Amino acid sequence: MELNRYTKFISLVKNKKPLVHHITNVVTINDCANVTLAIGASPVMTTNPEEVEDMVKIADALVLNIGTISDSVVKSIIIAGKAANKKGIPVILDPVGVGATPYRKRIAKEILKEVSVSIIRGNASEIYGLIGGQALTKGVDAGDVSIDQGELALNAAKQLSCVVVVSGKVDAISDGTNIVRIYNGDSYLPSISGTGCMLTSLIGSFAGCSDDLFGASIIGTLVMGLAGERAKKAMGENGGIGTFRMKLMDEISNINVQKIEEGAIIRES
Amino acid sequence: MELNRYTKFISLVKNKKPLVHHITNVVTINDCANVTLAIGASPVMTTNPEEVEDMVKIADALVLNIGTISDSVVKSIIIAGKAANKKGIPVILDPVGVGATPYRKRIAKEILKEVSVSIIRGNASEIYGLIGGQALTKGVDAGDVSIDQGELALNAAKQLSCVVVVSGKVDAISDGTNIVRIYNGDSYLPSISGTGCMLTSLIGSFAGCSDDLFGASIIGTLVMGLAGERAKKAMGENGGIGTFRMKLMDEISNINVQKIEEGAIIRES
Amino acid sequence: MELNRYTKFISLVKNKKPLVHHITNVVTINDCANVTLAIGASPVMTTNPEEVEDMVKIADALVLNIGTISDSVVKSIIIAGKAANKKGIPVILDPVGVGATPYRKRIAKEILKEVSVSIIRGNASEIYGLIGGQALTKGVDAGDVSIDQGELALNAAKQLSCVVVVSGKVDAISDGTNIVRIYNGDSYLPSISGTGCMLTSLIGSFAGCSDDLFGASIIGTLVMGLAGERAKKAMGENGGIGTFRMKLMDEISNINVQKIEEGAIIRES
Repeated sequence: MELNRYTKFISLVKNKKPLVHHITNVVTINDCANVTLAIGASPVMTTNPEEVEDMVKIADALVLNIGTISDSVVKSIIIAGKAANKKGIPVILDPVGVGATPYRKRIAKEILKEVSVSIIRGNASEIYGLIGGQALTKGVDAGDVSIDQGELALNAAKQLSCVVVVSGKVDAISDGTNIVRIYNGDSYLPSISGTGCMLTSLIGSFAGCSDDLFGASIIGTLVMGLAGERAKKAMGENGGIGTFRMKLMDEISNINVQKIEEGAIIRES
Repeated sequence: MELNRYTKFISLVKNKKPLVHHITNVVTINDCANVTLAIGASPVMTTNPEEVEDMVKIADALVLNIGTISDSVVKSIIIAGKAANKKGIPVILDPVGVGATPYRKRIAKEILKEVSVSIIRGNASEIYGLIGGQALTKGVDAGDVSIDQGELALNAAKQLSCVVVVSGKVDAISDGTNIVRIYNGDSYLPSISGTGCMLTSLIGSFAGCSDDLFGASIIGTLVMGLAGERAKKAMGENGGIGTFRMKLMDEISNINVQKIEEGAIIRES
Repeated sequence: MELNRYTKFISLVKNKKPLVHHITNVVTINDCANVTLAIGASPVMTTNPEEVEDMVKIADALVLNIGTISDSVVKSIIIAGKAANKKGIPVILDPVGVGATPYRKRIAKEILKEVSVSIIRGNASEIYGLIGGQALTKGVDAGDVSIDQGELALNAAKQLSCVVVVSGKVDAISDGTNIVRIYNGDSYLPSISGTGCMLTSLIGSFAGCSDDLFGASIIGTLVMGLAGERAKKAMGENGGIGTFRMKLMDEISNINVQKIEEGAIIRES
């Protein structure tokens, strides 16, 4: 297939250097800042309700992540989300561990009601929980659901009227009509904290420089999958989680069109 | 001595993959998440009073760390701690810098009054401060006290009716009757931030898969000490704090029974 | 020129091991803790208004960073700042992204009004914004201003009555009379999150062991610049942002007088 629709984002993001405002969790916030820089965008991370509206005014995309959500952060999310909607910049939601507690499910619904979200990125159990299925989330880790990832992405995209990225062994992205499946990635990716959050930041970085949000979601997923594969190879025999984390950031910062063309395993349907 | 009581935890944790709920500080929270994953357990980190009770319902252990404590986090700690007690899962407390301020000492006492704690892990000055001694804490770093580590662990374990781990050059663990001393570790460990917190997360991970809390405390301490030694060797001549941190995480994720049997220096009394 | 005024700080900080209390942002807080340890000082990071005054009582320097500022943190900053002034320990301010929002500009002014600040460290647009210029900050990244860095540092130091460090391609430090320019550093430094915050922590660490705050600001800047250069060389061809971050921490922890004497490119005027 024609990869140019996706690979062109690599130079786009480096040329535009979009400002990506994050309202995110305190566990992986540093990883999100660094991955945004690694791909060529510029991160800002305040959750302060007094200034999120002003931050959105200078931002090109808004990333919302509920990993360590609280009532005051929900307030900021809604202020920032409404400002982003008004300005017309994309809003990317990461519903971390949405099935883990009733509170988290309620606030995810509240966000979706108050804010028009452009892209949602989660694992299968999170997306399944978001559309009313019985979530199988164990904490904030990826659980398994017996539904096909592609069908799940398509159904969720239709129901939630946005692009949906379902991450997992196979990644599936749907805009409500088309389904793209990506077969890149490595089993080591879920063995470190924050690769889901980092993927959402990558998607947000790409979404901040084009109206093609489906394309931005696909290239973000491709970059993370390929970087994971390459990091695993680069870490060698004696490596472990520490080396993998470092190499993953290296590979994201060194990704280029050629590497994507050579490595991408992607199917449209 | 017979190491099997401890080494069996290595496969236990990887098979059970216990969910370890952390209410922890914002400085080393990412390290705690990654070390929990590295040993084979699954971390969740919310401090939100609206959902900690629900998180405990699905958790196998609760780790409490007062490194950046505030009134609202104390509230969550007590809610979560009571829920953990009711459910019967182990509660592991890390009284970071407890002697540094009167506030910290007061809330540590409050936590111990409201919650039945199963294991406490601190350095000598923290444990000494906790049992009413004049704490010698300088900030949150390990201070020195002139008391024997093993006697301190024993006295604290008796007084606080739980397993106590006193970390330092020699680590001592007591259940109030027995004392185990571990002579592994490296002087580089306190030269990076968070190795104490990470050790507490390791102990919490092991405690989440067995009723043998004394054993869980010992294997956690052994893993951190051995990983520290191995990381120091692996970092080479040109390495510094950055490489050591990476290698430490590698070594924790790659620990196995053979490495423990070959390297452990442990004495019971 | 005579470097001894600056290089003597290397042994000073390792001998005194000053306690550096940080009230800082949640994005780079772990990097700040580790860089403080790497240079030989001791970090403590609470933002809790209930205990910051007590922390300052045992601290040798106070670092204030507004990267993720909120009303409650401002409250703690002012309590801690006043306590530091009363005790006579240096206060080092990092006005992260001060031009990005009106809120941030307002609270920066409030801090400067309530607290006597000893050293301010920012990029050109932040310092320019702080003295009433039209800030060109894009988020919290370094922007460019067309004014000479040295003149900017001098003017700001005069206007704000403290030592001012303007970081950038050329770093300029002024005490209101003298200007020192440093030509070390690497273009990779701004490509990772937190190098500005880490520099402020280094300066705070050195300021905690001498009354020569101008010298402390210069040696801090030299160490970060030289470590950046050395980390870039050490990371090799296949390295990226991940390896650079690790090597940067290595180089800071391994800095010594000889490396500074051999590498420093510094001019006084």
